[in-house]
Amino acid sequence: MRYGFGVDIGGTTVKLAYFDENGTLLDKWEIPTVTADGGKQILPDVAASIAAYIQAHHVHKESVIGVGVGVPGPVNGAGVVNRCVNLGWGVFNIAQELSRLTGFPVKAGNDANVAALGEYWKGGGAGYSSMVMVTLGTGVGGGIVLEGKLLHGAHGSGGEIGHLVLRRGETEACGCGKFGCVEQYCSATGVVRLAKRHLAATEAASSLRNLENIAAKDVFDAGKAGDPVALEILEDYYDHLGEFLADLCCVVDPEVVVLGGGVCKAGQMLIDGLMPYFHQHVFHAASGAKFAIAQLGNDAGAYGTFKLVLDAFG
Amino acid sequence: MRYGFGVDIGGTTVKLAYFDENGTLLDKWEIPTVTADGGKQILPDVAASIAAYIQAHHVHKESVIGVGVGVPGPVNGAGVVNRCVNLGWGVFNIAQELSRLTGFPVKAGNDANVAALGEYWKGGGAGYSSMVMVTLGTGVGGGIVLEGKLLHGAHGSGGEIGHLVLRRGETEACGCGKFGCVEQYCSATGVVRLAKRHLAATEAASSLRNLENIAAKDVFDAGKAGDPVALEILEDYYDHLGEFLADLCCVVDPEVVVLGGGVCKAGQMLIDGLMPYFHQHVFHAASGAKFAIAQLGNDAGAYGTFKLVLDAFG
Repeated sequence: MRYGFGVDIGGTTVKLAYFDENGTLLDKWEIPTVTADGGKQILPDVAASIAAYIQAHHVHKESVIGVGVGVPGPVNGAGVVNRCVNLGWGVFNIAQELSRLTGFPVKAGNDANVAALGEYWKGGGAGYSSMVMVTLGTGVGGGIVLEGKLLHGAHGSGGEIGHLVLRRGETEACGCGKFGCVEQYCSATGVVRLAKRHLAATEAASSLRNLENIAAKDVFDAGKAGDPVALEILEDYYDHLGEFLADLCCVVDPEVVVLGGGVCKAGQMLIDGLMPYFHQHVFHAASGAKFAIAQLGNDAGAYGTFKLVLDAFG
Repeated sequence: MRYGFGVDIGGTTVKLAYFDENGTLLDKWEIPTVTADGGKQILPDVAASIAAYIQAHHVHKESVIGVGVGVPGPVNGAGVVNRCVNLGWGVFNIAQELSRLTGFPVKAGNDANVAALGEYWKGGGAGYSSMVMVTLGTGVGGGIVLEGKLLHGAHGSGGEIGHLVLRRGETEACGCGKFGCVEQYCSATGVVRLAKRHLAATEAASSLRNLENIAAKDVFDAGKAGDPVALEILEDYYDHLGEFLADLCCVVDPEVVVLGGGVCKAGQMLIDGLMPYFHQHVFHAASGAKFAIAQLGNDAGAYGTFKLVLDAFG
């Protein structure tokens, strides 16, 4: 049996995992992401953590297929990172650099893309030939997998679907500086923004008015409990999300759409809610996509990076 | 040297072409598309035309790699057509059927998709690794080619980009029955629609008012001549088109966007006009796409279908 490592670099922690060649996650742990000094300690820390694991667990170096790494920024198919603002990184070939530090072959991908590949391999997208994954968290991320291959994009931005323009005439700016991006409506933050707008526009009683800070989960919970304003907010949310997913299906026509991120904790309620709007907005010929909820949680990225390694060197 | 045929089935004519294995178009001709009786004569007519060509030109059957065919409707990777309203066709495997009739191996694709593959191979997309083609004609069609492979889509609708929702609140219905589709603004027909709206909304003098019927070309010509209302119409058009192309690049992040169809006869003026709007609407990391004008005209589909054959059997 051969083995490998999957590494998912986030802004606060680096998640590491050890897999066998069948994709069984055998072990996982985290180290802090040291972003000081342009993030120059991050890769040496990763390499040291892998070396320590190998020593502690008597791993035979010859049995290691390679190391996969996911980063929060654009990465092209050759492993060139094109700036990671969160980490302080500029432009460099992370695959080459981490390979030099670890002594193992390395494959790299964008964090949202590798999470998509993980879900495609072992999660909500398993068994389908093509998948769009949509991560509805603080922001909106995504990844596209076609016949087992990740769409990295020519500039490392394939599946950067959070910044499609969904609403012209939006007056608040998105974090990216544009106006009316998908992320402003469809993220967990977007649920809260829609909630505040609806609450301000009506005098109707709502349990949400008793909360000091509203979170996306509160809106779903209040909706489940029958709160009429929450239900209105959710309909508006589903409408935005349904239109967005319809647009994606018109471009990619995937076999399955997998929904991940914090909002997907709402589960089947989310899918049931958005489906009528999806069908209202989608072109009939691209309406056949199945919908599923992501299954791997925070491990999706590690699975996906290891899959990159298996595909390249396995 | 080996050879093959490319066949592009349209609603009025079938375009046939004969290629050598290097992709040189050696000969081309057309036959009428007989749509009577559920279009059941179309494939026998194609097979007879190929057989007649082979006989007339003393083609050695052993030198024929295969036949590629493009159809105006959804086709999946296995060659199953999922209804072609224009031709009267239902659901069947066109690749198997045309192979039975001709005796040659057959590959099939959607007409817009194979045109994209043709442009990628020998036209505006040549030399790039990934491409989105956008056809701005009576409607808006498209095709996506990634590392030489066509994105057919799980239901044969990959790149059916004409029916993304671009404008909520549109009151006129699109041909597809939805409201606010890309096609309603970005097609040649869309140019005319925008022109009529602008002309109705202003009293300003314009050479366009002298025309009984306005065509997209008239608007571009009047704009070139400095007509102020035409320039306003074109700015509005470029804004819609720029936003649409920005959305596509956020999903696919291609190396090049190739613009085809009647509107692209405006040439560099079209690209220069839309670029500021593209950059206004696109996510910075996906803004690196090059833009080019399609080069193969009506032959693009034949080139693309023959490329499918070469890739599969060549």
